[in-house]
Amino acid sequence: MSTQAHSNPSRQLADAEEIRRLIAEYAFHLDMNHPAQLVDLFVEDCEVVYGPGFGAQGKTAYAKTLEGIGTFFQATSHHVSNVVIDFVSENEAHVRTILYAWHRYTRERPDGHLWGQYHDIIVRESTQWKFKRRELRTTGVKDFHVKTMLPIGRS
Amino acid sequence: MSTQAHSNPSRQLADAEEIRRLIAEYAFHLDMNHPAQLVDLFVEDCEVVYGPGFGAQGKTAYAKTLEGIGTFFQATSHHVSNVVIDFVSENEAHVRTILYAWHRYTRERPDGHLWGQYHDIIVRESTQWKFKRRELRTTGVKDFHVKTMLPIGRS
Amino acid sequence: MSTQAHSNPSRQLADAEEIRRLIAEYAFHLDMNHPAQLVDLFVEDCEVVYGPGFGAQGKTAYAKTLEGIGTFFQATSHHVSNVVIDFVSENEAHVRTILYAWHRYTRERPDGHLWGQYHDIIVRESTQWKFKRRELRTTGVKDFHVKTMLPIGRS
Repeated sequence: MSTQAHSNPSRQLADAEEIRRLIAEYAFHLDMNHPAQLVDLFVEDCEVVYGPGFGAQGKTAYAKTLEGIGTFFQATSHHVSNVVIDFVSENEAHVRTILYAWHRYTRERPDGHLWGQYHDIIVRESTQWKFKRRELRTTGVKDFHVKTMLPIGRS
Repeated sequence: MSTQAHSNPSRQLADAEEIRRLIAEYAFHLDMNHPAQLVDLFVEDCEVVYGPGFGAQGKTAYAKTLEGIGTFFQATSHHVSNVVIDFVSENEAHVRTILYAWHRYTRERPDGHLWGQYHDIIVRESTQWKFKRRELRTTGVKDFHVKTMLPIGRS
Repeated sequence: MSTQAHSNPSRQLADAEEIRRLIAEYAFHLDMNHPAQLVDLFVEDCEVVYGPGFGAQGKTAYAKTLEGIGTFFQATSHHVSNVVIDFVSENEAHVRTILYAWHRYTRERPDGHLWGQYHDIIVRESTQWKFKRRELRTTGVKDFHVKTMLPIGRS
């Protein structure tokens, strides 16, 4: 966590806690199939990029991309760790995390696994930290239904 | 992390650190097959719920459920992330985490995988945070020996 | 996190953040195949122990062990959680984490999985926390290319 951006160090520590919580809530509501709560974690003019040509601009469009998750998957589990937070101002942070996601499909097919990175821009909207931009880059997949993903850019 | 419960914000940040540590110690002692140290992370009148009809009331009963872990598994690895802490008072927190657990059996059979959620009540007992209640809900399993689990309640 | 070592509790919380960041940066640069950035996370007289007879003393030797990672693996993903930090002084901490690492090989063979523990000595060098000693102990592997590992010492 960069410590330059905040005049108040203990406030920045509390902000980091709130940002980690936001990231955990996203995974939770995705796994619980709570599309409305998921969308509420984003600001109105958000941008979500799940892959090339797969994503959304704005909350309404994002809500549409979430339709069908409930029936396409029988269950998912999104495990997020390795949180790196860079505050660029008191109200904005660039955040990188890594993801291991397990997917059980409704249709008869092997479980899908994804290993990847989230690259986020997270902003404070009044008192709440929310996603302004969330981009998923994919390190690798196994038996996953999506074939074209953004790469992590490994050297 | 809810910030309402504490009069002292930096004390609450330190408490959150201690609570994350408790959760990590549980996984460590389980994987190391340290039943005595595991039981000591719980208060005397604890409640542990691993599944329907599988759990314990009180430390003595909990210690009994841990018997046999050392010989049933050759190895386990419990990975806990996505920690969400809600302080309900200065001495009590409701905590939700998610778990990916890998199990290698002593008997010849495929490794068992579990993806799930822990829902905990964690309390401060004099200076130590301890589990008062720990409930495991299961998102999904693969080749796991237990067949009946508490569901996460996905919509 | 032990709270005895620091005279300033909020400074210790900030240090814990920096230490978690260091641990995440290691995994990131390993997965991105950034050997130079990886080596820079270590002090000059570092010790790295990946297994019996497999490791390095000093940054130059460590850099050599990293050669070939870029071509041996097509991709890796290192997921680190369950962070336990013990400060032994204001400038040194003993840190234990657990690792789930996924490896896709360049050669045609099944993906390799490793579940393990990192046991680290992390020190402050001027203003930066760096690894002084990093030891990997292995809980178990599946289809992994390395056959001899340091055990976790499960009872």
